Amino acid sequence: MTTQMKFAARMDRMKASEIRELLKLLEQPGMLSFAGGIPDPALFPADRFAEAYADALSPARQAQALQYSVSEGYLPLRDWIAGRMAGLGIPCGPENILITSGSQQALDYLGKLFLSPGDTALVQWPTYLGALAAFNAYEPRYERLEINDNRPAAEITAAAGDGAVKFAYLSPDFANPTGRTVDRAGRAALLARAEELDCAIIEDAAYQGLRYEGEEVPPILALELTQKGDLDACRTIYCGSFSKTLSPGLRVGWVVAGAEVISRLVLMKQAADLHSSTINQMAIHQVAKAGFDAHVSGLRAVYGRRRDAMLRALAAEMPEGVEWTRPEGGMFVWLTLPERVSGAFLLEQSIAKEKLAFVPGQAFFADGTGGNSLRLSFSNSSEAQIAEGIARLGRVLRQALGE
Amino acid sequence: MTTQMKFAARMDRMKASEIRELLKLLEQPGMLSFAGGIPDPALFPADRFAEAYADALSPARQAQALQYSVSEGYLPLRDWIAGRMAGLGIPCGPENILITSGSQQALDYLGKLFLSPGDTALVQWPTYLGALAAFNAYEPRYERLEINDNRPAAEITAAAGDGAVKFAYLSPDFANPTGRTVDRAGRAALLARAEELDCAIIEDAAYQGLRYEGEEVPPILALELTQKGDLDACRTIYCGSFSKTLSPGLRVGWVVAGAEVISRLVLMKQAADLHSSTINQMAIHQVAKAGFDAHVSGLRAVYGRRRDAMLRALAAEMPEGVEWTRPEGGMFVWLTLPERVSGAFLLEQSIAKEKLAFVPGQAFFADGTGGNSLRLSFSNSSEAQIAEGIARLGRVLRQALGE
Repeated sequence: MTTQMKFAARMDRMKASEIRELLKLLEQPGMLSFAGGIPDPALFPADRFAEAYADALSPARQAQALQYSVSEGYLPLRDWIAGRMAGLGIPCGPENILITSGSQQALDYLGKLFLSPGDTALVQWPTYLGALAAFNAYEPRYERLEINDNRPAAEITAAAGDGAVKFAYLSPDFANPTGRTVDRAGRAALLARAEELDCAIIEDAAYQGLRYEGEEVPPILALELTQKGDLDACRTIYCGSFSKTLSPGLRVGWVVAGAEVISRLVLMKQAADLHSSTINQMAIHQVAKAGFDAHVSGLRAVYGRRRDAMLRALAAEMPEGVEWTRPEGGMFVWLTLPERVSGAFLLEQSIAKEKLAFVPGQAFFADGTGGNSLRLSFSNSSEAQIAEGIARLGRVLRQALGE
Repeated sequence: MTTQMKFAARMDRMKASEIRELLKLLEQPGMLSFAGGIPDPALFPADRFAEAYADALSPARQAQALQYSVSEGYLPLRDWIAGRMAGLGIPCGPENILITSGSQQALDYLGKLFLSPGDTALVQWPTYLGALAAFNAYEPRYERLEINDNRPAAEITAAAGDGAVKFAYLSPDFANPTGRTVDRAGRAALLARAEELDCAIIEDAAYQGLRYEGEEVPPILALELTQKGDLDACRTIYCGSFSKTLSPGLRVGWVVAGAEVISRLVLMKQAADLHSSTINQMAIHQVAKAGFDAHVSGLRAVYGRRRDAMLRALAAEMPEGVEWTRPEGGMFVWLTLPERVSGAFLLEQSIAKEKLAFVPGQAFFADGTGGNSLRLSFSNSSEAQIAEGIARLGRVLRQALGE
């Protein structure tokens, strides 16, 4: 084979074989997993999707559903999304929306649009692993975006405004992996800092609709729009997804931004995969139109109870010295262990001795720190499994701490 | 908005607004179009897809169909493709296959894998426009890959083997836009040249199954595998697609290569969009399994008659000095006009005076030459529309030539 491939060293670090080994272990009978940040498949609106695909393949619509379509995305779906965005304080038109294959694809395209090797990307610390993977292909330097509900917004740090910083990336609502939400003051401070740096803000809103308590905080883009009055003048780029609400298997997400940014992303998408699946966009549109709010309200009730169950169990089972976040929504609780305990070691022990899986926190830090942390997902386990799983975690932890 | 975006100048060249204006004109009543290289939607196996989606959403399968899945692609589909590839002389396993969102996505990922700014890509001349668009994002230099059925293979030209040439890209069967096929000797010569250059070969097989006459030519990858005996030792990367045979709207294609190349592309796909749509892969698998050959054989009969109708009409209607290709398959006939006639001017005249559309050839040349050529697609017009459309083209041409 040819010797001309790039990326060898960097990609080999990710060790797909190790991940596969781990996945095999997870299939053992009796294993409980808080590892994957995935929706509960029992909650998918499968019957509505069955109707929607049947309709898309009816004689009047099948030629459209199975054919090539425009790179921007299916217009009725963009119109529907525009209506939703208006409800979130972001009035916009279909020319402000690009349909992507999941919000993951938006992160890849935004990396491609903004980053050249050596450029700086500000990222939350810890950060969604998939964002780092998407941006890595464009070889940026990472700098710490210090902004969360436990720290004063004044601690946002960044390089000077010499143009080296291309964007700030964050998931402001119930972030993966910490579950934390950036409050309104934090969002305003970030906007001010981005103004000084003249950099874009990538607002990853993957979990935005999944709030279980507390008051809605307006999206960063909504706050900026209030200040500037014109979407084309805004530097924030909002990335949404149907993966956590309707289905991740269809791969449908969206980007909202000023028309110029969207028109460049459309050309990029046309060059990269022409367009997202026509039939899937039609199906998502039909299911969303028929009852998005009612469906998401059902999800919030179930996931909210699971979050409660996890927080209750943690309070009962965790030994002294373990701290955790109290997410107002989303899918994740973030544990910080005593400094001497390694999350990776604990996972090994936990799988072997207690048949319990989770994700060690180190993976989410661009600088490889955070060894004494864990991410627990509560979205895909029943309340009983959560109680049992946290009891197992308590036993492993007490053993690791020598109690 | 921020000033940090890349690509401004290059992308603005593509003038989306002009394309939209043109598309509006195409919607006039009575317009005939040989422009789009798209399948005839009346030939989609829509009923089989309706069954396949209903099955994928049955209680036993819906949780899988709507959920996240592995970046490599749906295993039963990769197994099915492996069986097809064996029939083409490329025995392989699922570890040699990545499912992509159309073969367009494979071209984007291969550009990302191989190209850094200033690297050289050898491309057919003229070339599939979407390949140039995909590679452009990685800023290569293009050099002419001179190889087609009208010229001796010895004319393959390229830079010296100093590692600057990263790959040779071609569509060897009924290429878009020319309809030409590279014969077995041409493929062998290309393999020898790639060996000297130590570069990859990207074999775009989008039209491979759509042959209407003449003998099958083995894929370049099959020829290389015969020489080397081991897929992992091969430098050819085969890109296949279901877009021209089953449906483009589902966005399902695939790449076949040695396991190391595939494992790097899998990591790239994971970072870029996680995976292609789960439910669409399941649907394509079911429809393909149930009768791929019978379906494609039906397509070949219909498209073959349309090709015949176009060649017959061209022979009857074209004035002196116009030449055209005689494709053995695919969707395109390529016209070369007398030097003084511009394809772009002719399109303007043709839309205004005769309500006929096609694609001027210049767009397909990386160096902007080829002004006196046109691409005509016969796949999405009836035989009667083809006869009428070519008569219109004859009138416009004779007028342009002052006859």
